[in-house]
Amino acid sequence: MSLESMKGVLLNGHGGFDKLEYKENIPIPEIKDDEVLIKVHAAGINNTDINTRIAWYSKNNILGNSIEIGEKGINNYVYNDGSWGGEGIKFPRIQGIDACGEIVDVGKLINKSRIGDRVIVNPCMKINSNYIFFGSEVDGAFAEYTKVKNDFALKINSKFTNEELASFPCSYSTAENMLLQTNLIKGEHILITGASGGVGSASIQLAKIRNAKISVISEIEKFNDLKLLGANCTYTRDQLNDIQDNSVDVVIDLVGGNYTNQLINKLKHFGRYATAGAVSGPIANIDIRTLYLKDLSLYGCTVLRSNVFPNLISYIEKNEIQPLVKKTFSLDNIVEAQRYFLNKKFVGKIVLTTY
Amino acid sequence: MSLESMKGVLLNGHGGFDKLEYKENIPIPEIKDDEVLIKVHAAGINNTDINTRIAWYSKNNILGNSIEIGEKGINNYVYNDGSWGGEGIKFPRIQGIDACGEIVDVGKLINKSRIGDRVIVNPCMKINSNYIFFGSEVDGAFAEYTKVKNDFALKINSKFTNEELASFPCSYSTAENMLLQTNLIKGEHILITGASGGVGSASIQLAKIRNAKISVISEIEKFNDLKLLGANCTYTRDQLNDIQDNSVDVVIDLVGGNYTNQLINKLKHFGRYATAGAVSGPIANIDIRTLYLKDLSLYGCTVLRSNVFPNLISYIEKNEIQPLVKKTFSLDNIVEAQRYFLNKKFVGKIVLTTY
Repeated sequence: MSLESMKGVLLNGHGGFDKLEYKENIPIPEIKDDEVLIKVHAAGINNTDINTRIAWYSKNNILGNSIEIGEKGINNYVYNDGSWGGEGIKFPRIQGIDACGEIVDVGKLINKSRIGDRVIVNPCMKINSNYIFFGSEVDGAFAEYTKVKNDFALKINSKFTNEELASFPCSYSTAENMLLQTNLIKGEHILITGASGGVGSASIQLAKIRNAKISVISEIEKFNDLKLLGANCTYTRDQLNDIQDNSVDVVIDLVGGNYTNQLINKLKHFGRYATAGAVSGPIANIDIRTLYLKDLSLYGCTVLRSNVFPNLISYIEKNEIQPLVKKTFSLDNIVEAQRYFLNKKFVGKIVLTTY
Repeated sequence: MSLESMKGVLLNGHGGFDKLEYKENIPIPEIKDDEVLIKVHAAGINNTDINTRIAWYSKNNILGNSIEIGEKGINNYVYNDGSWGGEGIKFPRIQGIDACGEIVDVGKLINKSRIGDRVIVNPCMKINSNYIFFGSEVDGAFAEYTKVKNDFALKINSKFTNEELASFPCSYSTAENMLLQTNLIKGEHILITGASGGVGSASIQLAKIRNAKISVISEIEKFNDLKLLGANCTYTRDQLNDIQDNSVDVVIDLVGGNYTNQLINKLKHFGRYATAGAVSGPIANIDIRTLYLKDLSLYGCTVLRSNVFPNLISYIEKNEIQPLVKKTFSLDNIVEAQRYFLNKKFVGKIVLTTY
């Protein structure tokens, strides 16, 4: 490997694991005047990496997430709307929305004092009034080096390891964004679905900071871990009937599909529902009468509000939230890592390292 | 008819027109200390009168509105959740959510100077932190006299006739509430479904006050009337494809059902959707990905925000909105009036008079 090349994982098209190509001679990115070059130490794995790879976001897809499509892809169609933003993905693409690393070079417009900063990357980037996402519309964290505009590389002072810091950005900022959007306040009752996942487990911690009453939906074998995180009441998906209708102030939903309408029934008058995913399936049958007769607000949450990432940095630096790294893999083992991730037998996050 | 009795229409149960009973010997309501007695001059007809009569709001019902169920009722089931608020309706009930009249008596706590005030009734009443609706949880306007707490009888100075004033409260406040909730601002593109109905035609006028670009969905034979009201672009339901995806800032939807997901596709990133009805059917298949990838907000709007009714009074007194009374009927002809209303061959409102 020469000094101008790096290790990394290329995504060569939409499909199964075979579309992921680990290489050791990828050119190191060239930075523009307002960008910084980051030596990536660790990179978190998220549903969105897999969703983007298999073109799950395409309107042609109506399947929920599953191990099978995560491994094999959905089919052989060519999708032109496979990204978060509805545009096509440009291949080859280096994915990875979560990065922790160190600034090793800066563009002409950036103060050289930034070199050496330990940083995490804000993955939701507003550039010329457009929003793009790290590892989706631009190359991301699944490589030894990455580059972003200076503003999106945020310095962090923390005793957490690189792997731990790399577990925060996407999941915790998505969760914080939903709690801000739904304006969860002290004493309110929040119901969190998909509670063992990255966003779910982050939502529990961030709801606990707000002193809410926390109910979660997950699998029985994860209930103890979720209680330790702050859950007050635990339910399986089949136990949804045990939660009283009209008893919940805020729903944070990552499951969607057939569950959405049931979740909406749980909301009180003036209740708020936020979604950032739909692992059980993208299509929901919603009773519109419930929506209007209870004066509900339903929020889709992808783009981060401007105070989300500063809040996240503050929570980390004040030790108000804990990382939940279940397992780490080296970058060349990305397929094994995603297979472990897809099996979802754990609470928290999986992280890749470039060491 | 004695001095203690009045003409009025009793709703004797959920069902068809046969559940409406016109009587001339109904006791005049007795007022409490904080209430006022109103001599009703005119009472508007609304979808909600019919929806409540046929128990359309019951979760057991999944039908859209139609002439047939409006005339005959849905079936013979006993519904215990037939009201807006999900509780059962107490029978007999005097319906009618829209009242224009004159205060003729006041309770002990109310200043007698109110006697003689020309008033319209705010139909959404917050009483002990509960919201109840005029003509639903309490008796309403389909009678010679009605009573409400003093605060909900709002004095109005206007040259409009009683019939014209009675056409405003429910429809225009529902529309204003949705425009406030979705925060429609100058220059934005609004799409209004069910545009010839009471709420739809009010929404056009209220969007025009805000200098929005107004697209409407209705029937071809109503397009001219809707353009005169302020619509810039007119479409039939079958022409929805002619509206570009991602081109609309705000959707005001009274149609619902199969159309909802198409309407959501029309919204731009950060678009807002509000609903207060679902005449084509209460169940909507929504693609949750569209909701979250475009950061949409969906609002159900029934309870009026506190500034809605004061705004409405102001618009009326400043002649900023026009009444659209298509036809009036006398109270004893309520069945004929509702039949005319159900046929929906007009733009605007139908009003009953007690003269």
